[in-house]
This record gives sequence, structure tokens and C-alpha cells, in this order.
Amino acid sequence: MARVDLNSDLGESFGIYKIGNDEAVISYVTSVNIACGFHAGDPLVMEDTVKKALENNVAVGAHPGFPDLLGFGRRNMVISPREAKAYIIYQVSALNGFVKALGGEMQHVKPHGALYNMAAKDYKLARAIAEGVFAVDREIILMGLAGSQLIKAGKEIGLRTASEVFADRHYTSEGVLVSREIAGSVIHDKEEAAERVLEMVLQGQVSALDGGKINLQADSICVHGDNQEAKELVEHIRKVLNDAGIKVMALKQR
Amino acid sequence: MARVDLNSDLGESFGIYKIGNDEAVISYVTSVNIACGFHAGDPLVMEDTVKKALENNVAVGAHPGFPDLLGFGRRNMVISPREAKAYIIYQVSALNGFVKALGGEMQHVKPHGALYNMAAKDYKLARAIAEGVFAVDREIILMGLAGSQLIKAGKEIGLRTASEVFADRHYTSEGVLVSREIAGSVIHDKEEAAERVLEMVLQGQVSALDGGKINLQADSICVHGDNQEAKELVEHIRKVLNDAGIKVMALKQR
Amino acid sequence: MARVDLNSDLGESFGIYKIGNDEAVISYVTSVNIACGFHAGDPLVMEDTVKKALENNVAVGAHPGFPDLLGFGRRNMVISPREAKAYIIYQVSALNGFVKALGGEMQHVKPHGALYNMAAKDYKLARAIAEGVFAVDREIILMGLAGSQLIKAGKEIGLRTASEVFADRHYTSEGVLVSREIAGSVIHDKEEAAERVLEMVLQGQVSALDGGKINLQADSICVHGDNQEAKELVEHIRKVLNDAGIKVMALKQR
Amino acid sequence: MARVDLNSDLGESFGIYKIGNDEAVISYVTSVNIACGFHAGDPLVMEDTVKKALENNVAVGAHPGFPDLLGFGRRNMVISPREAKAYIIYQVSALNGFVKALGGEMQHVKPHGALYNMAAKDYKLARAIAEGVFAVDREIILMGLAGSQLIKAGKEIGLRTASEVFADRHYTSEGVLVSREIAGSVIHDKEEAAERVLEMVLQGQVSALDGGKINLQADSICVHGDNQEAKELVEHIRKVLNDAGIKVMALKQR
Repeated sequence: MARVDLNSDLGESFGIYKIGNDEAVISYVTSVNIACGFHAGDPLVMEDTVKKALENNVAVGAHPGFPDLLGFGRRNMVISPREAKAYIIYQVSALNGFVKALGGEMQHVKPHGALYNMAAKDYKLARAIAEGVFAVDREIILMGLAGSQLIKAGKEIGLRTASEVFADRHYTSEGVLVSREIAGSVIHDKEEAAERVLEMVLQGQVSALDGGKINLQADSICVHGDNQEAKELVEHIRKVLNDAGIKVMALKQR
Repeated sequence: MARVDLNSDLGESFGIYKIGNDEAVISYVTSVNIACGFHAGDPLVMEDTVKKALENNVAVGAHPGFPDLLGFGRRNMVISPREAKAYIIYQVSALNGFVKALGGEMQHVKPHGALYNMAAKDYKLARAIAEGVFAVDREIILMGLAGSQLIKAGKEIGLRTASEVFADRHYTSEGVLVSREIAGSVIHDKEEAAERVLEMVLQGQVSALDGGKINLQADSICVHGDNQEAKELVEHIRKVLNDAGIKVMALKQR
Repeated sequence: MARVDLNSDLGESFGIYKIGNDEAVISYVTSVNIACGFHAGDPLVMEDTVKKALENNVAVGAHPGFPDLLGFGRRNMVISPREAKAYIIYQVSALNGFVKALGGEMQHVKPHGALYNMAAKDYKLARAIAEGVFAVDREIILMGLAGSQLIKAGKEIGLRTASEVFADRHYTSEGVLVSREIAGSVIHDKEEAAERVLEMVLQGQVSALDGGKINLQADSICVHGDNQEAKELVEHIRKVLNDAGIKVMALKQR
Repeated sequence: MARVDLNSDLGESFGIYKIGNDEAVISYVTSVNIACGFHAGDPLVMEDTVKKALENNVAVGAHPGFPDLLGFGRRNMVISPREAKAYIIYQVSALNGFVKALGGEMQHVKPHGALYNMAAKDYKLARAIAEGVFAVDREIILMGLAGSQLIKAGKEIGLRTASEVFADRHYTSEGVLVSREIAGSVIHDKEEAAERVLEMVLQGQVSALDGGKINLQADSICVHGDNQEAKELVEHIRKVLNDAGIKVMALKQR
């Protein structure tokens, strides 16, 4: 039976600052990626978010990022592999402390923002991240962009990996995401998005924006649910997946 | 056979900034307290310091502090018990990630600076810290000022505790340290300091500055070794302890 | 003719995090206090907020706080007078850079949160803050709690001061604010609040919660406008002031 | 009469962390670049360093950098021109507050580390920095790498600029510094370094590592003085300049 995971980013509040709509989003997904205090999140937010995830039986993942709260981890930073590995160990272990204290188990790690994007293309950085995850616990699943250097590095080091796809984004014929800044890169039609999801999950392929089909493993679909359009999209995707007999479940349950 | 631990603060560098003389100090002690990135330390420094400690067969402890790098964690901050507990879980878990990745085991947690001093007197804060340590791993030893609220809270919650004493500081008849700002509070004569250590370790008591003897358990002695006077003091203490047949060993080895 | 200033805290967003409803609030007040990057605010937010204030012909003030973004500057921190003075010079000058670059002039400085509250009672801290403001520009008005040590220190050093009162808070017979945590300390009836404002502005006195009248200079009234109740309160206060022939105007216009 | 400025980076300590040898260096130079709290420095350090510079009659400049204390501003970060301009206004104004409070006047601004290097090549970033400086005070001199985009942007916007050269570094035939990581890029022979300085100052040219001469304006020479080799180099350069009748003086004195 075909199956797929739905993941979303949570726990991105900081101090007095609230962001996102975690309560709503959590009911749509099977896995959550929780910020670890570098680009977003703080110890109280982390504790609350882990608690919420465990109460909702949603699988918990760490969402480590660059040490750039001011830029929300979305700005490229050139850090060394040694720094990357140590930043991963630090952040993943810090979140893992809350997960274990609350009786849970960490399912996966997915790098955030610019770190995610840079690690998709830069093997050395990807390798360092994979080494960091492996150093904390080799049972943790490494989630990254389908077809990326991060997935490659994770496999080489011996980690279980999860290839992530995007329902509402176009890909190039080389398998990378088309930048949001390019017109037509974001798919706003929920029917089209859901169809693409089906093709990715069932056939492991999808149409590229510049023509032809690309191969793409789809272990997890990145969704948001913090605005009306995102909410309708994820609800429609769940319906279509369900109608097609595809089971939506967390990665670790496989 | 009488025994005692010698501990020192390590891993307080940050980024390009180097502080302390970790290589020298590590050879004098049996336990080290490693900063966790809030008041000092960073992921690379933490990794290096844990590695150094393990290579030197010195027991590793976490040294969590206030989120105040600018003030080196030495400035009192009023935080809630919930914040204190979460800050402890975050910092201790982050350091523990490096300890485990490098094949070690965390022996103890000792709060740093203003957090240590405030937790010596404030039971609610002390309790929150103890709960944080307990949540991470109930096998970790909680180190605090001998006779403090922190030791009391640790015992009540079911943690093994280690009472810390100071070789070169005077106590009041109520068992608290005389402030460094008061003339005569610091003992500069190494013979006198070593004699006091012997009395604390063997008889569980010491003379108060304002007269009389106070009872004081001495599981671990706080030492420094980053300047010539500190180095001579710790060497002299080790010699005197040795001559008296007192074994200097890490807490966990008991 | 009687006159009074209405002030509100603005520019408290940080990076991706948005807080408050600056556009709405700005239309109700004559002066704004803008965060300077320590407890809230960042360079882009500061620039945007100063621009907005100048476009709305609202007087600009700096709102410096403790270096504690995680606690939004609301947690007491023990800093030395030297630190306080230097933190004030740094933050006020940074904001002043944007004010001048955009063709404006800084009217006042009002410390934020815990720094405001501590400086109300602690003369040494208050004096250091006043010295910092004086060092930047002795024409800047220092705003503080009516009757506080901050107002006293500002006057002694030769600064023009502005005594701030609260429309919806009770005072003790000693002239300090009753803690929000005490039942009955916050006034929810807008008629009662407006009546108190009138009495403070016209007669320089108000009823204390524990009986009797206290003297209180009212140069500026602290208002909020970021929720429905706050909005209705400030609108009602403006109406009552207007009906009484009291002119609502910025401090510097006097 | 030929003249040249000697500049050095100062005020890079932070909190308890001390770095550099500011007292020694200050006696060798005519201008200093003072960190502003983003990549290094803090309000107390800034105040102390400005005071020291003014007491030694050395011209004061701001040394703004990336918001990356952990990486000492040496790591490339991708920030937008709007962010760059606002970060410059913030940092330069903050330092300027101390300069004015202590009775001085800011001579120049020189970006630090990775910001300096990126602005040497990236015109948009360079332009944003120049706009930031111009917004604070159009009398401030903008210092940058000789022949860089930063110098070009500064001139275009109407700022006075100062072209900086390096005594102990090789240039390519395109006029950019050869990376320190390339063998032979750093000149260790003080005679050779001083000869090159003379040629740059007197003839506006120097030999490129890959052959031929390049044109290079030399308004200021970057020196260090915090170790024995650096100290000997700067002393030798001063002697050679003096023997050649070249006056060593701050930029603003021209």
C-alpha cells in the first residue's frame, strides 16, 4: 500500500513574539519540524511545541537553522563543515532533551531555510549536517529535498532518509525547485497541486516547468496550514490521497 | 577512606574569543564544568572541551547559566521557575549531545555564576533547576553550594547531589560565602586554605569568619588554575590531601 | 490653557516577527516611544517606525531597554550604573541616527519595561540613565513615572523631564503603581479612567487605591491602542480631554 | 608633500572577553576603526576605546560589521541592500553617540571583515553601505579597499573616500588581494613590505603577484601591532616613510 508523510514547520515563536498557527496546523500533518532556538524558537516554545505534538500523536522532528534570529535563518551564511556539524549536534540535542523529558522519541531532522537550500546543493555542507545527525543518534531520519545532496550524504553515512516534495511548487528539469521569485513557480490551483502529489507519490515522477518528466521520490510532503489557502490545499491533498487509497502516516511508522 | 573531587570551570571561550587556560587546568582536577552557550561557550568550544576532558579522563559536567553573554552570566536576572527549568533542559541536553557523540557520559550539572548564587538562596529557582536536571537524566549529579537551597531541592527531587566548598573563601556563621567585596573574605595563604580543606573534608566543618565552627559537607572543591597563584594553591591542596591519605577522585567513581 | 501629551510604545517588531498595531495606534497619540534593538526592534523596524512617526507628525522618542530580547526587556537585570549609561548612549544614538537621517528630531527618551520600573525606585540607576541621555543631547526630554527617582535624577542633571501617568492603573498612597497582579489594580471602566485623567491633568492629583489623594504631575498619558478595549479607552480619553478644553499635544510643542 | 594615514582595528573586545592590544597599537597609528557591537565590541568597550583614541589624538572611525558575533563578522552573509544600509546607520550612529559624548568627531567608516570584502566586489552592497554613511553624516570619509566597488560607490554618492592598501599582502594584476590561503600571498619580509608601501604612496602603483604593475591609490595603510612581527613591521614602515619625507597623518588633517 502506498503511503506518504505530511510535514509542517512548527514552534517558530520566540519570547513574546508569536508566529504561525500551530494548533490548527498540527491537526493536518503526521510529522512536525520544530525550531531549536537558533533561527527561531526558544526553550519555552520548544517545550510547549513538543508537548503539543506528543499530545496530538504527531511525529517530532528537529528543524535546526543558521544562528540568525534577525534573518529567521533565511539568509545564506558561509559556515565551515565543522561549524555546521557542531551547530546540528547542539540544536538537535537541545530539542531532543525536551522530547525525551516528555516521553517521546525524535523521528527526524530537517534543516531549515537557507541551511536546507544550501545543503541541497553543497555536498560538503550536506555531509557535515548528516554527520551531526548521525553523531546524535543514528536512528534519526534525515529529511531533505528529494534528489538533493543532503539525501545523498545521509544515505552514504548510513542514515535512513526521507525525500521531501512540495505540492505547490514547480521543479526544473534538473529536479530543483524553481525560485519563488520566478512567475509561475508557485501553483495556486489546488486540483493541480493534488494531482501532482498523486503522481509523485504513486509514480515517483512529476512534470518539470521547462518540459518533460523528472523522477522524484516522495516520502514526505511539505504543507502549511496557517492561512486559508494553505488550509484548503492541505485538506484537499488529504482528501485526494485518501480517495486514491494512499495512507497518510508518519515516516517512522513504516 | 576519605575522598574528594576537585572541579573547575572550563570551555568558557566564545567564537574568536579565548579565555582561561583549559589545557593547564584540566591536569589538576577530577571534574570539569563546561559552559553551554548561554553565558559562554559555543558549539565548537563545547565539542573541543568535551573531547579534551574525555582524553584526560576527567569527569564531565554541564555549567548552564543565564542567557547573558554580554554579562558572562554574572548579573542577577529574575526569571520564572518555568523559564529556569526549560533553560536547564536546553543547555544540559545540548552539552550532553556532544558528550554522548564523543562516547562519554555526563557526570554532573553545576549552575554558573549568578544562577548558582541565586539558586543557593531561592528555593523556587533551585527546585526548577533540579527539575530540569531530573528531566534530562535522573542519574546526573546536581552540584551546588554546600548547605544551599539547591542541594536541598536536588535531594528532595531524588537526585544525587554534590556539595561544593571553596578552599580560598571565608564563610559566615550561617554557612554562606562572605562576599568577595568584603576585606578578608578571600584567603591568600595557601597553607591556611589547605588546612581548611582538610578540616572540611575530614571533619565536615570549618571556622566561620565571624567566629565558631559551621558544619559543611565537602564533596567537591572548586579550584582554578589559570594563574600562578591559583596553580600553586591547587598543587598545594593536592599535596596536602595526598599526605593525609585522602583520595582525589571524580564524584561518579564513588 | 491646560495641555497634555499622549504616548504609546511602537516599533516592537523584530525580524520576521510582527507585534502591535502601529498604524492604528499612531493616529491616537502625540508622541511615540520606539524600541532600539535591545529588548525589541531592529534596524529595519526602527527605520520604518521613525518614518511612519514623522509622516504622521507624531513626536519621536527612544524606548531603550535591557539587552534581553528573549524576555522582551521585562525581566529585572542587575546592571551597573556604568553599563546602564553606556546602554542608553548606544541605543538612543542608534535610534537618533534614523531620526536625523529622515529629517526629524528626537523629542524624548523613555526607558522600557523592567528598566523603567527599576529606575523609578533606584536612584543610582536613574541617575545613570539620565547621564546617558544628557551625554547624547541635553535637549532631549526624559520621560519617567510621575514622582519617580528617574524624574528626580533627570531634573538634578539639568534635563527637561516629562512625568508620565497611567489612565487605567491605580496608585498607592505613596504614589507608586499598584502591581497588575493585585486584584482591582487595573481600571476597566473607561468613564472612571477618563475622570481620573482629568483630575490628574487639571488638579495634579488622583485618588489612591488605599485611600486619600496623592499629588501627581501629568505631562504625558501612556495609552495603548492595539486592541478594541484600548482603542475605545484612548478615544474616550481624547473626547473627555477635548470637552474639557485640554489640548492634546506633544511635549516639545509646549 | 606626500602623506599617508596608518589605520588599525580596535575595540574588538566583548563583555569579559579581551582581544587585541589596543594600548600598544594606538601609539603606532593615526586612525582607528572601532567595532560597533554587531561582530565585536559592546557599549562599554566602545566608550573605553573612543576615550582612549581621543586621549591619544588618533582619528576615530566606525568599523561596522555583520550581525554575527559567533563568527566575528568574518563569514559571508547574504543581506539585502535595505538591510545593509540600516545596519550601517544603526552601528555608525551608535558609535557616533560615544564619539560626540566624549567631545570628538567621527572621521571615517570602514566596513569590517566579510562585509568589507563583499562590498569590495558587489556594487549594490557597496552602494547601500555608502548610502548608510551618507545618511548619518555626509562629512564622514568612507574607507575601503583601493580600487573597490566601495570606493566607487562612495565617490558616486558624494562622499570623500579613503583608499586602503595593505603593506604585507600581494595583489593580483586585477588589483584585488590574493587570498591569504594562497602560498606567497602574505609578505613576511619587512624590507620588501616597506618598499612596496613607498611605491604605493609615492607612485600610486605596486607589483602584482602574477606580473606587471597595477595602479593603486594609497590613502591609508592597514597595520596591526598586536604581536611582535606586526609591531616590527609597522615600526619599520614608519621609519621608511619618515626617511622618505612622507608625513604620516590622519585622513581628516589633509
